[in-house]
Amino acid sequence: MFLTSEPIRLGVAGLGRAFVLMLRTFQNDPRVKLVAAAAPRAESRAAFEAEFGGRGYSCVEEMAEDPEVEAVYIATPHQMHAEHVAIFAAAGKHILVDKPLSVTMEDADMMVEAARSAGVHLIVGPSHSFDPSVLHARQIIESGEFGAVRMVQAFNYTDFLYRPRRPEELRTEEGGGVLFSQGVHQIDIVRLLCGGRAKSVTAMTGVWDPERPTEGAYSALLDFEAGSFASVTYSGYAHFDSDIWMDNVAELGGMKDPANYGEARRALQTLDSAAETKLKATRTYGAGTVPPIAQNNEHFGPILILSDRADLRLRPGGIDIFGDTERQHIEVPLNAAPRKTVIDALEAAVRKNIAPPQTAAWGRASLEVCHAILDSAETGEKIPLTRQCGVEFQEETL
Amino acid sequence: MFLTSEPIRLGVAGLGRAFVLMLRTFQNDPRVKLVAAAAPRAESRAAFEAEFGGRGYSCVEEMAEDPEVEAVYIATPHQMHAEHVAIFAAAGKHILVDKPLSVTMEDADMMVEAARSAGVHLIVGPSHSFDPSVLHARQIIESGEFGAVRMVQAFNYTDFLYRPRRPEELRTEEGGGVLFSQGVHQIDIVRLLCGGRAKSVTAMTGVWDPERPTEGAYSALLDFEAGSFASVTYSGYAHFDSDIWMDNVAELGGMKDPANYGEARRALQTLDSAAETKLKATRTYGAGTVPPIAQNNEHFGPILILSDRADLRLRPGGIDIFGDTERQHIEVPLNAAPRKTVIDALEAAVRKNIAPPQTAAWGRASLEVCHAILDSAETGEKIPLTRQCGVEFQEETL
Ligand SMILES: NC(=O)c1ccc[n+]([C@@H]2O[C@H](COP(=O)([O-])OP(=O)(O)OC[C@H]3O[C@@H](n4cnc5c(N)ncnc54)[C@H](O)[C@@H]3O)[C@@H](O)[C@H]2O)c1
Ligand SMILES: NC(=O)c1ccc[n+]([C@@H]2O[C@H](COP(=O)([O-])OP(=O)(O)OC[C@H]3O[C@@H](n4cnc5c(N)ncnc54)[C@H](O)[C@@H]3O)[C@@H](O)[C@H]2O)c1
Repeated sequence: MFLTSEPIRLGVAGLGRAFVLMLRTFQNDPRVKLVAAAAPRAESRAAFEAEFGGRGYSCVEEMAEDPEVEAVYIATPHQMHAEHVAIFAAAGKHILVDKPLSVTMEDADMMVEAARSAGVHLIVGPSHSFDPSVLHARQIIESGEFGAVRMVQAFNYTDFLYRPRRPEELRTEEGGGVLFSQGVHQIDIVRLLCGGRAKSVTAMTGVWDPERPTEGAYSALLDFEAGSFASVTYSGYAHFDSDIWMDNVAELGGMKDPANYGEARRALQTLDSAAETKLKATRTYGAGTVPPIAQNNEHFGPILILSDRADLRLRPGGIDIFGDTERQHIEVPLNAAPRKTVIDALEAAVRKNIAPPQTAAWGRASLEVCHAILDSAETGEKIPLTRQCGVEFQEETL
Repeated sequence: MFLTSEPIRLGVAGLGRAFVLMLRTFQNDPRVKLVAAAAPRAESRAAFEAEFGGRGYSCVEEMAEDPEVEAVYIATPHQMHAEHVAIFAAAGKHILVDKPLSVTMEDADMMVEAARSAGVHLIVGPSHSFDPSVLHARQIIESGEFGAVRMVQAFNYTDFLYRPRRPEELRTEEGGGVLFSQGVHQIDIVRLLCGGRAKSVTAMTGVWDPERPTEGAYSALLDFEAGSFASVTYSGYAHFDSDIWMDNVAELGGMKDPANYGEARRALQTLDSAAETKLKATRTYGAGTVPPIAQNNEHFGPILILSDRADLRLRPGGIDIFGDTERQHIEVPLNAAPRKTVIDALEAAVRKNIAPPQTAAWGRASLEVCHAILDSAETGEKIPLTRQCGVEFQEETL
């Protein structure tokens, strides 16, 4: 390459847990430079200014006016994404908004339109559809080497429901439960592998703990326009842990220590809701420790891709290819900076005007599937989908 | 126990592959004595007479008249089960018929009625619902220790479709494909764990190899009257092998050798259909080698049972219990004779008039689910079930 490009000047909205999980990326990927942050808590603004030397704002409106900010990473709670996207899009900033795009389909529509009419890129991420093994699998699929994708099975058994939560994270109508926070990852992945356009969903959900009365589990069947189908299952009830089938690598790439079995439930055992919210706050920026750079790629549980001439099994370190008469392992090495693929997408969008598949319309399509899972579970019906979009790595004419 | 009982005097119909797989049981379980066999091939009758000293018949009608025969094991091809059950029931013999009960629901109805009106027990087995870990899990569920079963996930990735087959085993309408031979195991297991009475099925199936044009894969969602639901997935396309998640133990309890990857497809590569049928015949009784007694329990792939206070993971050697804050492993030891649990059921029925859950009505209910999976895949509809029955270990009044 002959062109060098300036780092993208990024503003961050929300210095909570999601930001902490992006911190190692921001610290280590020279293609982004944090120049501003909007956060209600003074301590986190101070920590941000101390670490990055940028400007702290107490509200997003102020940051939106900062001319140095080219693009923003929105890491505020789900239900605020729509409002914050509207503000930043109107100010002409490109947007990386953490998953899910929004809670309601109305908000999603508004966000698609906000980005479009403002002529800014909107990327939904990070999401596990950016995991290196997933992207590599997508390349293998596109190569056609093993024929068409016929079926995908994805499942994940975690302790999601027992990690410390804000109260609204346990209320479905406000975006709580496993669908909006976890299901959306799985759906993103499966849609990417199956061509994006799901046709219908049949699903059942589980609300099994009266003390955390929101969906903690689901299982769904999806069919796709491309002719394939997918079975997706999730449980966040902190019992079986499917990471034992992922080489003991945890979702964020660290190693799991079996001695810690049950720790999520144990940590909550004596807490009321207020104390739990406080505990969650200790995991935000400036308040607690930051996880070290992981030694493995992130992942979202076992994923099997069945195609004509091979099944692909995604693992943190690569892809096992089970062919007709031979098996092989393709290594997918760790990138120098974690979540490099998310910054790849951001850079391509902001610097080269190339949008990744994970646009606003994409995020809306994944959100539609989340709602369809809830609807199907409630009504017992198969839910047709109408807002899907395909997988395109596209040059956009903004 | 004060009573000793005479061994059950058993006649066998069909000395093919299924009989070979029962041979170690018959050789090692003193509670059964083989006294007769009906088989069209003279070599297998001769081998039978040489090994067991019983009488060989060239047709089932003759064996049905043998007064020494108390009970029969029917191991003929699926499509003959109904006719053979009718003949033996009319002759007053108790019946162990290999899965599936039959291919058509009409046959199943007839068989339920034939056993009932003749006052004989009909047990559908062996089936993996007799696997020791499955039966032990059922006991744990009945104990109530961990609360209600909420969800079951079962999946199995095998080389089923590429094992040597008779032509009709590759024609769905004659009972070919994975549903009738393999799905029925999975459904038996899941029904046993979820209380038996499924309410509806939504499913998709895969017919992906034009050279073997029958269902090689499926995924289905079931809901149960008891309130739980199940996700079941199967692929017999000989790519990914889920036994790597079952401690490398094969379905029949032997150890898998990774060096044999691809052997099923390789063995078929140069064969036409006639040669393949012949190859299958080399695996029948009197023609080939008999597998040694396995050193592990049989299994049918990974099975996870989610209940209120624990997830159970079935493994060949036992059950992992993932509780709220602790995990434990319950060993399920190997029985002296393989498939002892099937003979337990037969003995209880014939000697004590206690029927296992796996009666004719049970087999019909599992068959109904197989058909519903096919129907749902074809129509895209959710299929309501009407012929289900519960899990009863019952004293029958015959
Ligand atoms: N991709 C991932 O790995 C990942 C992980 C965790 C969370 N998330 C996503 O990130 C988002 C935030 O979740 P979280 O767990 O970090 O929650 P959090 O509560 O830890 O963080 C949210 C932050 O937003 C701040 N905030 C609230 N109102 C604001 C406003 N008006 N302007 C600016 N900041 C404001 C809060 O002070 C808090 O620090 C959610 O949408 C969630 O789905 C993604
Ligand atoms: N439970 C298990 O583990 C298991 C395994 C394999 C097969 N099976 C079941 O066993 C049954 C047979 O399948 P298989 O794979 O053994 O097939 P197979 O072809 O190997 O055996 C069938 C046998 O039936 C004999 N036969 C045909 N017509 C007969 C008749 N009129 N009277 C007596 N014998 C007759 C054939 O000669 C043959 O030996 C099927 O229903 C299958 O589902 C069960």
